[in-house]
Amino acid sequence: MLRITLAILLSALSFALPTHAEATFVQKRELQLAEHRFVDGRRLPVTLGFETYGRLNERRDNAVLICHFFGGSSHAAGRYAAGDPRPGYWDALIGPGKPLDTDRYFIVSADVLANINAHDPTVRSTGPYSLDPLTRQPYGGTFPSVTIRDQVAVQRSLMEDLGIQRWHTVMGASLGGMQALQWAVSHPDRVERVVTVAASGRADAYNKALCQLMIDAIRSDARWKNGDYYGQEAPDGGLASAWKLLFVHTLSRQGLSRGITPGDPASFLEALEAKARARIAEIDANAWISLSEASRDFDLGAGHPDYRSALGRIQAKVLAIAAEGDLLYPPELIRTDLVAPLADLGKPARFHVLTTEQGHLGAVYDMGQASEVLRDFLR
Amino acid sequence: MLRITLAILLSALSFALPTHAEATFVQKRELQLAEHRFVDGRRLPVTLGFETYGRLNERRDNAVLICHFFGGSSHAAGRYAAGDPRPGYWDALIGPGKPLDTDRYFIVSADVLANINAHDPTVRSTGPYSLDPLTRQPYGGTFPSVTIRDQVAVQRSLMEDLGIQRWHTVMGASLGGMQALQWAVSHPDRVERVVTVAASGRADAYNKALCQLMIDAIRSDARWKNGDYYGQEAPDGGLASAWKLLFVHTLSRQGLSRGITPGDPASFLEALEAKARARIAEIDANAWISLSEASRDFDLGAGHPDYRSALGRIQAKVLAIAAEGDLLYPPELIRTDLVAPLADLGKPARFHVLTTEQGHLGAVYDMGQASEVLRDFLR
Repeated sequence: MLRITLAILLSALSFALPTHAEATFVQKRELQLAEHRFVDGRRLPVTLGFETYGRLNERRDNAVLICHFFGGSSHAAGRYAAGDPRPGYWDALIGPGKPLDTDRYFIVSADVLANINAHDPTVRSTGPYSLDPLTRQPYGGTFPSVTIRDQVAVQRSLMEDLGIQRWHTVMGASLGGMQALQWAVSHPDRVERVVTVAASGRADAYNKALCQLMIDAIRSDARWKNGDYYGQEAPDGGLASAWKLLFVHTLSRQGLSRGITPGDPASFLEALEAKARARIAEIDANAWISLSEASRDFDLGAGHPDYRSALGRIQAKVLAIAAEGDLLYPPELIRTDLVAPLADLGKPARFHVLTTEQGHLGAVYDMGQASEVLRDFLR
Repeated sequence: MLRITLAILLSALSFALPTHAEATFVQKRELQLAEHRFVDGRRLPVTLGFETYGRLNERRDNAVLICHFFGGSSHAAGRYAAGDPRPGYWDALIGPGKPLDTDRYFIVSADVLANINAHDPTVRSTGPYSLDPLTRQPYGGTFPSVTIRDQVAVQRSLMEDLGIQRWHTVMGASLGGMQALQWAVSHPDRVERVVTVAASGRADAYNKALCQLMIDAIRSDARWKNGDYYGQEAPDGGLASAWKLLFVHTLSRQGLSRGITPGDPASFLEALEAKARARIAEIDANAWISLSEASRDFDLGAGHPDYRSALGRIQAKVLAIAAEGDLLYPPELIRTDLVAPLADLGKPARFHVLTTEQGHLGAVYDMGQASEVLRDFLR
């Protein structure tokens, strides 16, 4: 009797569970654009991958756009399936009752063009690894150069497709923060709030140089062949060097040193190399170059008389979050090159520094710490 | 009559000037060692370049050893000839009446083995670019690996040759500071004082990784050919990348950004590339690898049970100087990984932070600022 009851109960559960779970699973979606005109003048059809969480309200005033960082994707929250080892990267911030409350906001998270994770099947956005419809071969070296303004332009098309007139908030970390700021400069009337994390309004000399060194590392690999390596050996040596150069700058000094085993100094470099080789299996070298160029050349002043006049266009309220120990966008750089000039222009931005030992990656993994600041700012 | 007087006067001057000037000119000297046993076990004859300023006193207790940084040479003070554009790198510190008073101290400045400036005719120390006496070909890829302990060992031979029993002080910046600290650990009874600038007692993970990335950049250049490129095209592409990677870390963030022309963002990267190409004309790629490996693997704990026990051997008084904004050896790293452990061991070191906008290079160019601290410490 007990056995039968249990069997019925289990059967009922196995029926109920998927239904309940399916409702919480996230789906990758795609927007096809017949033509995107790149900043460099070229026109191509492009696909944009995106995800949404929550529902657009009737007044269509609760839409939040999330832009992702260099190594990320649109997968900011939730899981695609029950077996997923990890949820999206900002799952601590996005969901019912969380600062980006999905019972309240309609959250749109967009993939960048030339997403580096080309070998990840959930990445769908067009990049140099995509097939050129004319030749039916990957674009490779013929893919247009991609700028932060291109990312914003395709997101603008997505906005229209979703029937949104104005973003409640545009938010992003690192490369995503650059996109959020670019939104506020390119479309000042369409953004109410900007939350930028571990990013500034332009690359400083150091960041420009690091991006160039990553590009050079890939280009100097004999297997790169001007970007036309598809179907052949990929420039993995150069890509591994680029990955390592970026990786050691995404942690704080102390955070990185935690990887050293006392008494075994060589093990750290071996582990770093192994980590690089494992990670780059998912990555396309040309896409890495594309996003490095976009980061290197990022300057809100592009297309405007100067940086200051570009900042002057911003109407959105700005929250700038920095991460302690960040080697790429140190709090002091964000304060002096973004927060202070905005204040000078009579546009006081809120500035918050995360206490973290993860440096730049704190912008992804320690953002839960900024929950109250974020709730307050979004209110 | 006036004309004759002038002629006599000029003739007298032209006679007098060289005599006076010669007395102040610096001469490069050489020590030939029939055999140096490298830490890796190999035995080779080596030449060590060095310079001296001032005179050894009768009690032989006024000798100061200066060890140089990665890109430097033994040329720490004075000029080789009247036409020299610049004096030695620490000329602000070394000379009559200066903190390292040549009327008081006998200053010995030694070149490192595998000095990177192989194409500078004043550099004489043996390195991978030197001729192997057995083959009469450059050592290239067969040159032994060079450690900081090797540098100290050949300086120990120089000390003996000069008839010095004990250094009043051993002092150096960056790679030179590592040598100074290694002296105090390897030969505690032969060093009274150590002045280390912009260096710590071991490379942290970040510095290890940067060194490895520089090595990888050169090795991945197809022209490197396992180090046997002499008489052929040198691996200048890889070497330029290594130089740029180091250079952008030797200035502070702000210092580097001063190189950007407003409105012309590309000019900075072009100038950086041009600077790299000009500088590497003097540099040997294999020597760069040698010193990168020495920097990467530097750990006072090598050959001892651990880092702490190595520090425990130090008997010298220690002055640790750090430079504000230093991206390679930040003041905080020197404080936590050298000054604090020494204090724990009951060996309080003096700690001084230079106020500079030059970052790591402040250890070379802004050391005049530490004159009083230095005078007081040497007293």
